[in-house]
Amino acid sequence: MKPFSPLALAIIAAIYTSSVMAKEPIEIIQPVMITEPEKVELGKMLFFEPRLSMSGFISCNSCHNLSTGGVDALPTSIGHNWQEGPINSPTVLNAEYGLAQFWDGRAKDLKEQAGGPIANPKEMGFSHELAVSTIDSMPAYKARFENVYGDGKITIDNITDAIAAFEKTLVTPNSPFDQYLLGNKSAISEEATAGYQLFKDKGCVSCHNGPAVGGTMYMKMGLIKPFHTKNPAEGRIAVTGNAADMNVFKVPTLRNIELTYPYFHDGATWTLEEAVNVMAEIQLGQDLSKQETQEMVAFLKSLTGDQPQIVLPILPPSNAKTPRPAPFAE
Amino acid sequence: MKPFSPLALAIIAAIYTSSVMAKEPIEIIQPVMITEPEKVELGKMLFFEPRLSMSGFISCNSCHNLSTGGVDALPTSIGHNWQEGPINSPTVLNAEYGLAQFWDGRAKDLKEQAGGPIANPKEMGFSHELAVSTIDSMPAYKARFENVYGDGKITIDNITDAIAAFEKTLVTPNSPFDQYLLGNKSAISEEATAGYQLFKDKGCVSCHNGPAVGGTMYMKMGLIKPFHTKNPAEGRIAVTGNAADMNVFKVPTLRNIELTYPYFHDGATWTLEEAVNVMAEIQLGQDLSKQETQEMVAFLKSLTGDQPQIVLPILPPSNAKTPRPAPFAE
Repeated sequence: MKPFSPLALAIIAAIYTSSVMAKEPIEIIQPVMITEPEKVELGKMLFFEPRLSMSGFISCNSCHNLSTGGVDALPTSIGHNWQEGPINSPTVLNAEYGLAQFWDGRAKDLKEQAGGPIANPKEMGFSHELAVSTIDSMPAYKARFENVYGDGKITIDNITDAIAAFEKTLVTPNSPFDQYLLGNKSAISEEATAGYQLFKDKGCVSCHNGPAVGGTMYMKMGLIKPFHTKNPAEGRIAVTGNAADMNVFKVPTLRNIELTYPYFHDGATWTLEEAVNVMAEIQLGQDLSKQETQEMVAFLKSLTGDQPQIVLPILPPSNAKTPRPAPFAE
Repeated sequence: MKPFSPLALAIIAAIYTSSVMAKEPIEIIQPVMITEPEKVELGKMLFFEPRLSMSGFISCNSCHNLSTGGVDALPTSIGHNWQEGPINSPTVLNAEYGLAQFWDGRAKDLKEQAGGPIANPKEMGFSHELAVSTIDSMPAYKARFENVYGDGKITIDNITDAIAAFEKTLVTPNSPFDQYLLGNKSAISEEATAGYQLFKDKGCVSCHNGPAVGGTMYMKMGLIKPFHTKNPAEGRIAVTGNAADMNVFKVPTLRNIELTYPYFHDGATWTLEEAVNVMAEIQLGQDLSKQETQEMVAFLKSLTGDQPQIVLPILPPSNAKTPRPAPFAE
């Protein structure tokens, strides 16, 4: 029999790989393809723009810090006038993969989400009107909006559209686990490999699946046993008014989970070891051995991907028309 | 007569240029030469490190924001627990050119300065001991300190040394005015050229001189007429105890002054027009015409140089040994 040609071998390998990959409940994160670089750059400026807050001090990046996994790494966030936020800040990294935004899914997409914190009195404490006036006052912004949106009219719709365009670029491909999925079995340790098997066998994948290892559905927090927390958030019932949605939250992504402590919507759990044990117990009714815990954590740490490389934007100066910040207004 | 060789011409040109430049009270900002890139990179991480604050929320960049001219663009800064800072945040850009640091010069250099805000209960609200424990807890930081400082022992001395090394790279060369000084007379407008002449003729250069157009001396605020302010800062007397130093402050740099509003140590003046008129009146006993004001402002705006291009650092994750942030501790 004639040996297979290199091309034929490559095709067979590709078919085999894709059939194996198709069986995996977790998909790789694709590198971003930027098709509208000017909109993305404008969105980056706005993401880092502290003048979208009443104080002139808080930007999107304050609570979704791109130096620290797209979160503030606090139990709940610090808002205007140092108000204590109601819930743990979800990561902006790979957020586009979520079926909706916020823990309770009350925003349908990143664009709708971006308008929330700006006008939330406990977060950036501003208004959409003042945000628009602020950006509209600066000729450098006006020129960019005109370039990107044509008519040069600045609206909260355009502002949040640009922010969302930037946020869609904040993906973290090339994690060790993605390399493993692509066929490089030595990209993760034996411990992590065992952890992934456990992650599938125990049923974690029933909620944590897809490219973001989460974000694809809503689920009750405390499915088997109640979740004990002092946090008053009630979850999706706040959106649907449906009693069955009490304590139902969007399943969070596990991508970069090593970076996005503390965990759960109340941010009360600081270690991955504790987090996986709580999940196993209250969602699956299982106890993990010490070894299983270690394996699961090793797997979770293999989900840390390449962090977006961000060149800090230089923002245009305010002028006499720009609304002045009011950091110490009540 | 034999024509001059190209080399001879270049030497004559250099001598001529340097003799012309020597007459100017303002010198160009030199581009930075980075000789210790690993120390600078470590310092950049620490500059953006919110875990150097009690809350885990405030970094050096919070009040010396490199997106906005190295300042927070607020009258006085927001500190731990939203405390109102005592004085306007000076820019970190070109700060190395200052004869000392802080408005009252109480720190002899950038390294000494860097330790101040970390432990100031009204600023980052931490302690040097906790700052060291925090950084020391993370293997990725330990490896970098070992690489840069040899013995791997992390101290507040090393931490502030690295921050200062990064800050020394934050220079803004190539402003239109620097191009003008280098011989390109059309790099600034006729209005700005007239403003520079005024700046010299009126006597502004007696304090605002050197590469940073300031920072070379201390001067009484309100030399001819008193400066009216609600800000209680007394200036250099706090350092020297000398009664003659009442209301004496370090002369601030005017580099990038268009970006570093609001002005003066109390941050109560928002426009350059108002600022130059206050200065002319209280420091020089002069009134500026509207045209003179415009010319002076045009000159000042020509001092905005190339802003440092900063790739946002990715910070290592906390672990079980890392002191936890206490954002809502009193």
